[in-house]
Amino acid sequence: MKSDTMQKPHDRMAEYLAADMAAVNTLIRDRMASEHAPRIPEVTAHLVEAGGKRLRPMLTLAAAHLCGYDGPYHVHLAATVEFIHTATLLHDDVVDESAQRRGRPTANLLWDNKSSVLVGDYLFARSFQLMTETNNMRVLAILSNASATIAEGEVLQLTAAQNLATDEGIYLKVVRGKTAALFSAATEVGGVIAGAPAEQVQALFDYGDALGIAFQIVDDLLDYQGDTGVTGKNVGDDFRERKLTLPVIKAIAKADAEEHAFWTRTIEKGRQQDGDLDHALALLRKHDTLSQTQADAVAWANRAKEALNTLPDHDMREMLRDLADYVVARIN
Amino acid sequence: MKSDTMQKPHDRMAEYLAADMAAVNTLIRDRMASEHAPRIPEVTAHLVEAGGKRLRPMLTLAAAHLCGYDGPYHVHLAATVEFIHTATLLHDDVVDESAQRRGRPTANLLWDNKSSVLVGDYLFARSFQLMTETNNMRVLAILSNASATIAEGEVLQLTAAQNLATDEGIYLKVVRGKTAALFSAATEVGGVIAGAPAEQVQALFDYGDALGIAFQIVDDLLDYQGDTGVTGKNVGDDFRERKLTLPVIKAIAKADAEEHAFWTRTIEKGRQQDGDLDHALALLRKHDTLSQTQADAVAWANRAKEALNTLPDHDMREMLRDLADYVVARIN
Repeated sequence: MKSDTMQKPHDRMAEYLAADMAAVNTLIRDRMASEHAPRIPEVTAHLVEAGGKRLRPMLTLAAAHLCGYDGPYHVHLAATVEFIHTATLLHDDVVDESAQRRGRPTANLLWDNKSSVLVGDYLFARSFQLMTETNNMRVLAILSNASATIAEGEVLQLTAAQNLATDEGIYLKVVRGKTAALFSAATEVGGVIAGAPAEQVQALFDYGDALGIAFQIVDDLLDYQGDTGVTGKNVGDDFRERKLTLPVIKAIAKADAEEHAFWTRTIEKGRQQDGDLDHALALLRKHDTLSQTQADAVAWANRAKEALNTLPDHDMREMLRDLADYVVARIN
Repeated sequence: MKSDTMQKPHDRMAEYLAADMAAVNTLIRDRMASEHAPRIPEVTAHLVEAGGKRLRPMLTLAAAHLCGYDGPYHVHLAATVEFIHTATLLHDDVVDESAQRRGRPTANLLWDNKSSVLVGDYLFARSFQLMTETNNMRVLAILSNASATIAEGEVLQLTAAQNLATDEGIYLKVVRGKTAALFSAATEVGGVIAGAPAEQVQALFDYGDALGIAFQIVDDLLDYQGDTGVTGKNVGDDFRERKLTLPVIKAIAKADAEEHAFWTRTIEKGRQQDGDLDHALALLRKHDTLSQTQADAVAWANRAKEALNTLPDHDMREMLRDLADYVVARIN
């Protein structure tokens, strides 16, 4: 085993939370079963066992521990959060017509879109069953609000896509919806179930919100400068799918008439040809938008770390601090 | 206005519950709004305002009134039930690749599958927000269980479709899932929010369950013998979509070798040709399965009426009794 200082913060958290995470995994396997419809656990297992990082459920467990809670309902809430996440992935892959997720063929490809839609619905419903078992109305309100915000963000992304008028404000709304809402709900409910005081619950929300935004900005950045071998994504996927993400939004804001025509043709009208991705990358470099985007991600990670100052001194707090650094360190 | 005895039971209920239904409609319009994503109310309004019968929310209001409740949370629960129903319709039309619903083009056709999937998710999330506002853990458990059962029934239908081994037991599970689960949850939560005693809550569940099953059997029957002008469905849609419904399941159970080969070719392998629907109808007549299916529907309607005997004597109870008769009277 690597020494503590060498380990990734995510792995250190996983080690610290190993017993709880084992309970979460057991609960997930238990609840994704379906007596009547064996297709459900097949599809779910394909995704759940593909080895995602389980970052979101760990955030819930971490927040609960940090606020001195030792169970049992943080396990239900962590499983709830992972179910919501899995359901949105199933539906996202249908919406994006994706063929790969976590380096494996997507469920919509292996089975069909129908199964992905309906199994996603099943997991949403299961997540609500799980959270009702906590008997805590506040966590129900937080998680149902988060679910609505996620769906709203996805619809907004759908209508904002391919529209060059999408600015940084709209981008932030989309990111808060599709990514940060579940991060912030994950940390917030950990504090709520622990009975933490209001300012700590707020700090946990702020941490999750800022971490989620940093995480998504980095994801969007890696799409233009990532190493395929490391990220599992191909450079330029977002460009080919005509998604307006931060590096491009910043470049469009600075575009001259000729550049604007280029973005209109490739993103808005979708008439792409050989060499367009290279030209797009050249424009991002010309306007220095990749490093500006990176600076934005670092600023959000710093906000996440600042939020932690309101929380109790605890090993877990240090791990959450390191996690914020690690999320942006993925870039290099 | 027609005299009471001439009015359809559904219309009499609507008249009795007019003030509550107006409150439900206001709440639905209010909650389907989205500040950030105008696509959401567009899609939802298309479906919500297409003039469905609002049968499910009326059942919740009716059950609450019957048990002596006068508000305010039956309105939230009725809107919740309609949101869940609308969300499942949006997803069903994607799964079935439908082009028409309630005589209008479907949302997946007018916008796209993506919008239908994501707006459906939004309405599911909104439904959970609405029900948390009642602050009643029991109704949350009932409605989240119903949502899981609905999704499970839809997945089961997907895997049972085109499989000639589907028997009446599997059919009943599918119908309980895709239709009866929401009917029984709708009536049950009306009783629960009213604080009705356990045997009345059980009776309301039983009524909704049996009514929902009768309703779906009639729907499946009308697909083979309905008048398109009245039902808005084309005769034989289920046959063309290779759905195994009760009239066909009963005919397959009695099929000789040649008939079995016909069903295998048309339903299981989907190799349909001109004249196949006529031949299928001839086989249903030969084995008398349409009238047997009708008898099953009547038996379920009778079970629904029997369940009402446990409930208080009330005008609403008579309307619910008439409603059970009316659901099967649609056949003639």
